Amino acid sequence: MTPTPPAAVVLLSGGLDSATALAVAIDRGFRCHTLAFDYGQRHRHELEAAGRVSAALGAASHKCIDIDLRAFGGSALTDDELDVPKHDADAEFPPGIPITYVPARNLIFLSFAVAYAETLDAEAAFIGVNAVDYSGYPDCRPEFIGAFQSAAALATKAGVEGRPLALETPLIDLTKAQIIATGARLGVDYGLTHSCYDPDPEGRACGACDSCRLRRAGFRDAGVPDPTRYVSDA
Amino acid sequence: MTPTPPAAVVLLSGGLDSATALAVAIDRGFRCHTLAFDYGQRHRHELEAAGRVSAALGAASHKCIDIDLRAFGGSALTDDELDVPKHDADAEFPPGIPITYVPARNLIFLSFAVAYAETLDAEAAFIGVNAVDYSGYPDCRPEFIGAFQSAAALATKAGVEGRPLALETPLIDLTKAQIIATGARLGVDYGLTHSCYDPDPEGRACGACDSCRLRRAGFRDAGVPDPTRYVSDA
Repeated sequence: MTPTPPAAVVLLSGGLDSATALAVAIDRGFRCHTLAFDYGQRHRHELEAAGRVSAALGAASHKCIDIDLRAFGGSALTDDELDVPKHDADAEFPPGIPITYVPARNLIFLSFAVAYAETLDAEAAFIGVNAVDYSGYPDCRPEFIGAFQSAAALATKAGVEGRPLALETPLIDLTKAQIIATGARLGVDYGLTHSCYDPDPEGRACGACDSCRLRRAGFRDAGVPDPTRYVSDA
Repeated sequence: MTPTPPAAVVLLSGGLDSATALAVAIDRGFRCHTLAFDYGQRHRHELEAAGRVSAALGAASHKCIDIDLRAFGGSALTDDELDVPKHDADAEFPPGIPITYVPARNLIFLSFAVAYAETLDAEAAFIGVNAVDYSGYPDCRPEFIGAFQSAAALATKAGVEGRPLALETPLIDLTKAQIIATGARLGVDYGLTHSCYDPDPEGRACGACDSCRLRRAGFRDAGVPDPTRYVSDA
């Protein structure tokens, strides 16, 4: 009899980082339950991408939770009144926290992952944050992840019973190029993923938002062919 | 010109603890924005109670956020397959974490409070947890609240900029009777609040679930008349 593999919750956005985190979790032998969020984001092509990626990589299940972050506003990703900033390909990223920051988004997403892990009796939760290319979001930093893991251990039945959830961030020290190289080695089809903050109605990437710029440079630096459909290719 | 009072987010469940926490926050001079959650709970009379309490105590605004915790299951409060336990009035509470525990509920609620506070530029968030009568929920313990506050400071723009959100738990060391005495002094109309986990269709309290038993004993011990409508009074 083969033993049942340990379960993990994997946060999946539909972007390339979380797709890579899922591939790593599967490679480490976890039975993966992927979790996406419909939070009123403009780039809703992400949600379709999350479902495709979960199925393609062989996750055990996929769930999408509705949470209305639009009710709070305050980010260019959820507020129609705010524009997503565009930059020339060679421009420096402006200092500070960008307007695409969604207040406390990872805090909320990780809290749901902890709740879901508790009901699944999962050993781990994977999140594809990375600190190198995090472009100014405070809730992608390793010090936040560590503090959150401590809080989660105290909040849950599993933690109280001495089986605290392990919060896994396999990409945290990788550059975008290293992430892409890792995923390519593990068989991720990046053509299924979506990164653009401001795609056209057919889901083609704008090529100019911060997320497109990081992604494009990542493929170039990794020496991996970029499968993204850009508006400018049309 | 009067200075604008500082803003606070107050988590409001419709129960007596959070109503008291709101009264304390208002008494301390905060402009209070109350936040409730529709998480598929059985005791939905709570949600109507939250709106009534917010208006009656003079909060600046009230918001209810939909989050589907039913998607995860695992608690008698959100899962129709599980029964809410009933006990004799004098029975001891069973040891351990009760089945009415909703996995990581306060972790999720506090994460939303942090996000909302960030968009309001609020100084504080109030939550009516108490450790004395917490009846076994791990995420009501002061050590969890402290760890969560540290994580939240690292997750947010306000925290990064040196203005971390203060997480206020004014009831944490109070017994149910002390909470009721505090609220009565501050003018809380407890007739507007709802505590029962398993009310009848008209919203009358069962009198036998853990929440009813704690509430009933609290009024008795505080020497404050209990305005609750119980099924047994009908």
